[in-house]
Amino acid sequence: MTSRASEGLWITIEGGDGAGKTTQSTLLEDWLQSQGRNVVRTREPGGTEVGNLIRNIVLHHRGDVAPRAEALLYAADRAHHIETLVRPALSRGDVVIQDRYLDSSVAYQGAGRVLDSNEVRDLSLWAADGALPDVTVLLDLDPAHARKRLDADDKPFDRLEAEDLDFHTRVRAAFLALAEAEPERFLVLDAALPASELAAVVRHRVSTLIGDVSTSH
Amino acid sequence: MTSRASEGLWITIEGGDGAGKTTQSTLLEDWLQSQGRNVVRTREPGGTEVGNLIRNIVLHHRGDVAPRAEALLYAADRAHHIETLVRPALSRGDVVIQDRYLDSSVAYQGAGRVLDSNEVRDLSLWAADGALPDVTVLLDLDPAHARKRLDADDKPFDRLEAEDLDFHTRVRAAFLALAEAEPERFLVLDAALPASELAAVVRHRVSTLIGDVSTSH
Repeated sequence: MTSRASEGLWITIEGGDGAGKTTQSTLLEDWLQSQGRNVVRTREPGGTEVGNLIRNIVLHHRGDVAPRAEALLYAADRAHHIETLVRPALSRGDVVIQDRYLDSSVAYQGAGRVLDSNEVRDLSLWAADGALPDVTVLLDLDPAHARKRLDADDKPFDRLEAEDLDFHTRVRAAFLALAEAEPERFLVLDAALPASELAAVVRHRVSTLIGDVSTSH
Repeated sequence: MTSRASEGLWITIEGGDGAGKTTQSTLLEDWLQSQGRNVVRTREPGGTEVGNLIRNIVLHHRGDVAPRAEALLYAADRAHHIETLVRPALSRGDVVIQDRYLDSSVAYQGAGRVLDSNEVRDLSLWAADGALPDVTVLLDLDPAHARKRLDADDKPFDRLEAEDLDFHTRVRAAFLALAEAEPERFLVLDAALPASELAAVVRHRVSTLIGDVSTSH
């Protein structure tokens, strides 16, 4: 939605589990609020009531849902989320900080090698009627490093434990390929750096975009 | 699945509510069973457990679900239904009699004019990985005539009462256009004829296809 930045700002945060997406989202939200901006924090899958119902089907029937059906359910969640939550927030002039978007779908599907990742991307774009964020922050991290972080967190379950390291290495490569294909949209960061340093770089990029908004009026 | 008819036979029944789809499905099922064939009766949306969960979301949130999300949910139901129920039945050599398939999605979406009907067709075909039935029986009926039948049935609620006659006239025209585009797959019948006459024509077409199966071995 770069061409309609005056209607708000849309930031997606991507990367594997354990890369620090939640920490960076919170730091960015705090800073934006200190700047007087209205912030909407959201996520996919499941940012809406209908989305949570869809998410429950996928999670409770994991393994029993046909691969194309699963991709279509995630796309349905996306369509509803973008139409009923993201677009209205942007129209109000809010800043939307979103945990995961279509890049996650493409990267995880591509790594899983069940469906064609280009088809998954087309499906996502159709679902969202072509909507793309103003900036996508990719928190890039070696999967072995991410696993150590998650182990230290002592969480009862995470996706990294359910899949092997090889899979997450393919996910990482897929994310980096997506970033390379759209260098203007992506901000790729080394997630092994201290959180405060990463936050400073994100703030700088976002302040540039907010600046664009101000000067466009 | 015409090219794989030896793996079973797949028949879809299309038409507006009140056209007699259930009656014809039952008459065909009875006859096929009398011929010693295994028959699977099914429907979309909602022919599977996952499909019923999806159907519940669409029905309980009607009007609140974004149009693209609704189309994607129906497509997800379709993907799961075809993959987990229809294909296995056909592989076993069963005859599948299915109430509504992608032609309904295209005709109703086209008549509703919210989404592009070609896009809805592409979405359905992706969901089903290109699967098309051996024959589609279209029970064509003037919507005013269908309404009279449903009123006589004294049902508490039906879709015809929820939408206006003009909408159902567009649905009918869309079905006929689909049949015209694929004359080999469609068997178009005047649903105002007596049920026994219609059943005889359906039996004739199906017996031709079963004959093809027999001679292909």
